[in-house]
Amino acid sequence: MRIGGRAYRTIWVESDGWSVSVIDQTALPGRLTILRLTNVDEAAQAIREMRVRGAPLIGVAAGYGLALAMRADPSDASLDQAAELLAGTRPTAVNLRWALERMRGLIRAGPAPGRSAAAYRHAGELAEEDVRVCAAIGGHGERLIRDRWEALGRARPVNVLTHCNAGWLAAVDWGTALAPVYRAHDAGVPVHVWVDETRPRNQGLLTAWELGQHGVPHTVVVDNAGGLLMRDGRVDLCLVGTDRTARNGDVANKIGTYLKALAASDTGVPFYAAVPSSSIDWSADDGKAIPIEERAAAELGYGAGVSVANPAFDVTPARLVTGLLTERGLCSASAEGLSGLFPERG
Amino acid sequence: MRIGGRAYRTIWVESDGWSVSVIDQTALPGRLTILRLTNVDEAAQAIREMRVRGAPLIGVAAGYGLALAMRADPSDASLDQAAELLAGTRPTAVNLRWALERMRGLIRAGPAPGRSAAAYRHAGELAEEDVRVCAAIGGHGERLIRDRWEALGRARPVNVLTHCNAGWLAAVDWGTALAPVYRAHDAGVPVHVWVDETRPRNQGLLTAWELGQHGVPHTVVVDNAGGLLMRDGRVDLCLVGTDRTARNGDVANKIGTYLKALAASDTGVPFYAAVPSSSIDWSADDGKAIPIEERAAAELGYGAGVSVANPAFDVTPARLVTGLLTERGLCSASAEGLSGLFPERG
Repeated sequence: MRIGGRAYRTIWVESDGWSVSVIDQTALPGRLTILRLTNVDEAAQAIREMRVRGAPLIGVAAGYGLALAMRADPSDASLDQAAELLAGTRPTAVNLRWALERMRGLIRAGPAPGRSAAAYRHAGELAEEDVRVCAAIGGHGERLIRDRWEALGRARPVNVLTHCNAGWLAAVDWGTALAPVYRAHDAGVPVHVWVDETRPRNQGLLTAWELGQHGVPHTVVVDNAGGLLMRDGRVDLCLVGTDRTARNGDVANKIGTYLKALAASDTGVPFYAAVPSSSIDWSADDGKAIPIEERAAAELGYGAGVSVANPAFDVTPARLVTGLLTERGLCSASAEGLSGLFPERG
Repeated sequence: MRIGGRAYRTIWVESDGWSVSVIDQTALPGRLTILRLTNVDEAAQAIREMRVRGAPLIGVAAGYGLALAMRADPSDASLDQAAELLAGTRPTAVNLRWALERMRGLIRAGPAPGRSAAAYRHAGELAEEDVRVCAAIGGHGERLIRDRWEALGRARPVNVLTHCNAGWLAAVDWGTALAPVYRAHDAGVPVHVWVDETRPRNQGLLTAWELGQHGVPHTVVVDNAGGLLMRDGRVDLCLVGTDRTARNGDVANKIGTYLKALAASDTGVPFYAAVPSSSIDWSADDGKAIPIEERAAAELGYGAGVSVANPAFDVTPARLVTGLLTERGLCSASAEGLSGLFPERG
């Protein structure tokens, strides 16, 4: 996607052929800062500090983290140690684990001398696959927005509400929940996005920033406001991402998503989660199996005098989710829906 | 209630016998600043800028605003002008209108020379009545907390979740939603309060501050967190205030209240609103008749570059409210419930 007219991805290998650059998302929307990662510790730190964030992106970043580790030391011990370090950075998003397991198997299959090159190649494939998957989600989701616009007699823009940032900054490009918005906007379907601020880290400002760079009309609201907007008929559909979706369709996503899904259900607003298959945890029967990350109290910004808790995710039960948008199309939020699209995992 | 061991109310007449002092709530919790109001314009400004806030308190503050106006000019024109000015400061809380209408009638009934003294007397009565009403709500609500504690076999503290600030800072003393918490705590029933941060103005910090001054254990969470806490069984009951409750039991309160009520309903957590009768709009058949204040975008703190909307209240439908705590006791959130307790308005 474009920043000030220039095309960017969120992560890329530098022209030196080995160091990995990322957009530092803790500096946005104020400053565009590129962070250069030169070893696996720096990659792990960037993920832990949420300089790179978003389930799809941290999967790819972990992949490049393994490549940096293999460049320094291609031994089995180095591979295991790097994978363990990277897996421990964030507990909820399953993409991290998925990317690490997949890459570890591919790397270990080859002899040590070729592992560095293989790791870079596999990480690059992860990145390209993420772009293809997000583009496909965008294509499937665009139809939902277009259908709504037609149903409205093309009388006004379609109002989408989103929570947190599941845009291109959360992936390599396109994004998950925002990919349909970009595709619809580019195809001439008028869209306006209600952007939840998303305390405590205000990832809504990342969403507002990327929508603004692309010219998509949007309005930031506090996380408290979505219920009122839905009751007042000012939201046509909700689109959110996911950090981990269980095989029954329960959707773990940024804390507060469940509250918006409740309001959508109560007011008849369709509620969709954009779910690349890398975010599906086939080993989790339901949301109860998904660990919820507790982050530092300091993220709320109140200092030591105020007693604080800071859980970072919640689980939206499948019964509140109208559908899951995957790279293979739309399905119901259910074991049947998912296994219908992914029979090889059924 | 006590600040640093010294007893305070939120509003009082100074020893000069006419100027009105209030605690400036925009300076809390950082600083305890007393603001002296010497004319009706200053009173209106203090309400508009939320230096005094909370439905019960702004009713009383408006009463003293009329007294300041009568001291300067006891004419009918002055009375009407002052009432109109004060009524226009905040649209949603009905207490303001209720206090102004009541005082205007009482003041107008007397001759101009005695109006200033009468206005101060009536405003003082409003303040005393608010203290009595909040204390009564506290007594009725204490039983809810105590019953829950007994049901838990006294095994652990009762976890109450509250939104915004409906404590003593929002009233003259005691508060509405927090009065039961203070009463239970003082009676030896262990209580822990989950305090919603309450963006955009973070009134949750006022709640945390007053609970801390009184020694009540509490934890601040972002507004997004309540749903997770309820799903995890970490909330025993929700207690909120109201800015205006319709005669059918629909409860207008700080934006985001509706989302918490949805989560409470979805998870089987009882959800109570503390409703002094001064907050009941008997002329509003239901929540649709309640105007929702839209406040300045600047409250979100993002500057001119970010497009923002800032509605300040939402309406929780009566079907999601377990009960209304009034000064006359607990009733169902319904026309029957309210008219049973207030037959003179039925």
